[in-house]
Amino acid sequence: MVICTGSLALDTTRTPFKTVERVLGGSASYFAYSASFFTRVGVVSAVGNDFPKEHWKLLEKKGVNLSGVQVLDGKTFFFDSSFSYDLHKRTANATELNVFADFIPRVPVGMQNEEIVYLGTLSPVNQDALLDQLPRRRMVFMDTIEYYIQNNERELREVIKKVDGLILNDVEARMLSGEHNLVKAGRKLQATGPKIVVIKKGEHGCLLFEGTSVYPFPAFPLEDVVDPTGAGDSFAGGFVGFLAKKNDFSPKTLRQAIAYGIVMGAFAVSDYALDGLKKIKKADISRRVHEYKKLIEF
Amino acid sequence: MVICTGSLALDTTRTPFKTVERVLGGSASYFAYSASFFTRVGVVSAVGNDFPKEHWKLLEKKGVNLSGVQVLDGKTFFFDSSFSYDLHKRTANATELNVFADFIPRVPVGMQNEEIVYLGTLSPVNQDALLDQLPRRRMVFMDTIEYYIQNNERELREVIKKVDGLILNDVEARMLSGEHNLVKAGRKLQATGPKIVVIKKGEHGCLLFEGTSVYPFPAFPLEDVVDPTGAGDSFAGGFVGFLAKKNDFSPKTLRQAIAYGIVMGAFAVSDYALDGLKKIKKADISRRVHEYKKLIEF
Repeated sequence: MVICTGSLALDTTRTPFKTVERVLGGSASYFAYSASFFTRVGVVSAVGNDFPKEHWKLLEKKGVNLSGVQVLDGKTFFFDSSFSYDLHKRTANATELNVFADFIPRVPVGMQNEEIVYLGTLSPVNQDALLDQLPRRRMVFMDTIEYYIQNNERELREVIKKVDGLILNDVEARMLSGEHNLVKAGRKLQATGPKIVVIKKGEHGCLLFEGTSVYPFPAFPLEDVVDPTGAGDSFAGGFVGFLAKKNDFSPKTLRQAIAYGIVMGAFAVSDYALDGLKKIKKADISRRVHEYKKLIEF
Repeated sequence: MVICTGSLALDTTRTPFKTVERVLGGSASYFAYSASFFTRVGVVSAVGNDFPKEHWKLLEKKGVNLSGVQVLDGKTFFFDSSFSYDLHKRTANATELNVFADFIPRVPVGMQNEEIVYLGTLSPVNQDALLDQLPRRRMVFMDTIEYYIQNNERELREVIKKVDGLILNDVEARMLSGEHNLVKAGRKLQATGPKIVVIKKGEHGCLLFEGTSVYPFPAFPLEDVVDPTGAGDSFAGGFVGFLAKKNDFSPKTLRQAIAYGIVMGAFAVSDYALDGLKKIKKADISRRVHEYKKLIEF
């Protein structure tokens, strides 16, 4: 099982083509849904008592263990954002932390011996609090966002020291490393703790750092990107989910896992919210990975 | 033999780390030098009578046929530019067309039956004039720049109609197609004539369009980019040079050719001006292509 923390949210997402309101979102939702195609996932998070039953059921139907999700008095985390016409620029209209304001993650007894962990976007203090409750952790991956680099850098760097894999985007990698060149940035981040670093570049794919090697991967070419929300967490779900399924973290398996991550990210952005992932089956994933492999073969 | 047109120039390039003055530059120089590792190249261009003998010799030593280069009264094309600290932004300080102001390309008798052509950056009128003199042309590739899209769009589109392969960067592809999404942009450009389109994305690699397929390729990961000048033409030299050597334009060979293009571009940017290409041997190229292949294999 992969234990993940991160947000369960209600998202209102406005693109120039359509607005979807108060749909299931959040880093833990995308990660868990995506990873559930490969492995069992346990979520440690919180929702308010307004959290719709249908969202709960959706995740449970995918075998996601929600016993670590606290239902707290108050409202679920709410995020309202708008995308620019080219879907490259996102503007936050409202961020209501609600139940996350005082959230402390609690790992249920049945999950305390788990070994593979994904720290989705949450405050570094909460990410750290999760780790403390997982004494047998063996492989920990984490993501973060600009906000925590700007506001909680010291705490964030403490968490980064403790993880095995850091997954972040190009802007975040440059901010955290102080290097513009992404190859230098990735190597500098490796030197701060994580032996594995993945720098995501959106439509330009990603770079995987392992040991002294840097593996570049293009994105899956897509003519229609509908909603970029959740691309990163769906990527992480494919990547970490595949690794957990193989229970192997060799360079070769890491590269395969990247391909699964890329494909899951591509499915996620092909429709609004979780709809891109909801309409696929396992066979679609293998087919798409095979297609991707053929495209970059020469 | 590949017949290429484009500029032979004297370049002054200022990076935050070093300035090189009046060194050999221009699209035809980079293309010819790069392609000469794979095939014979004939250049159709012009220089002034100030063009240093050593540049002439440098290209001839690589087997480049310069009988199509007119030595005209006046000065060689001169380009002075500065790069920003991160080497991503280039500012032109001076562009002196000099002998190119009234240049008309003339294909020497010995080259008039050649079949493979590269139209490097020049005015579309000149690119077209070259084609008229190559009645047996079978595969024509071309590049262009923003300047001609803005100032000679009509003439440019006429040339594009006649070519088999269009090689351009992401900004140019978006301008010419009116599409932000590069997959859509490439397909739209294919519909205007060229059955092959290559969209270069600098440090993010490129997209190859052939038939209904879109093949994405990452760049070769480089920790140190020294001088981005000539990256695109060196890429084109590797790509077209390899295709000419194989005399095959199937999807599989096109993909291999892209890898050679990517590697030649990476060598070019690893040092100032042509120095990155001057210090390599054929074996370095095969080694690097093999390394690239291994990096993206999964």
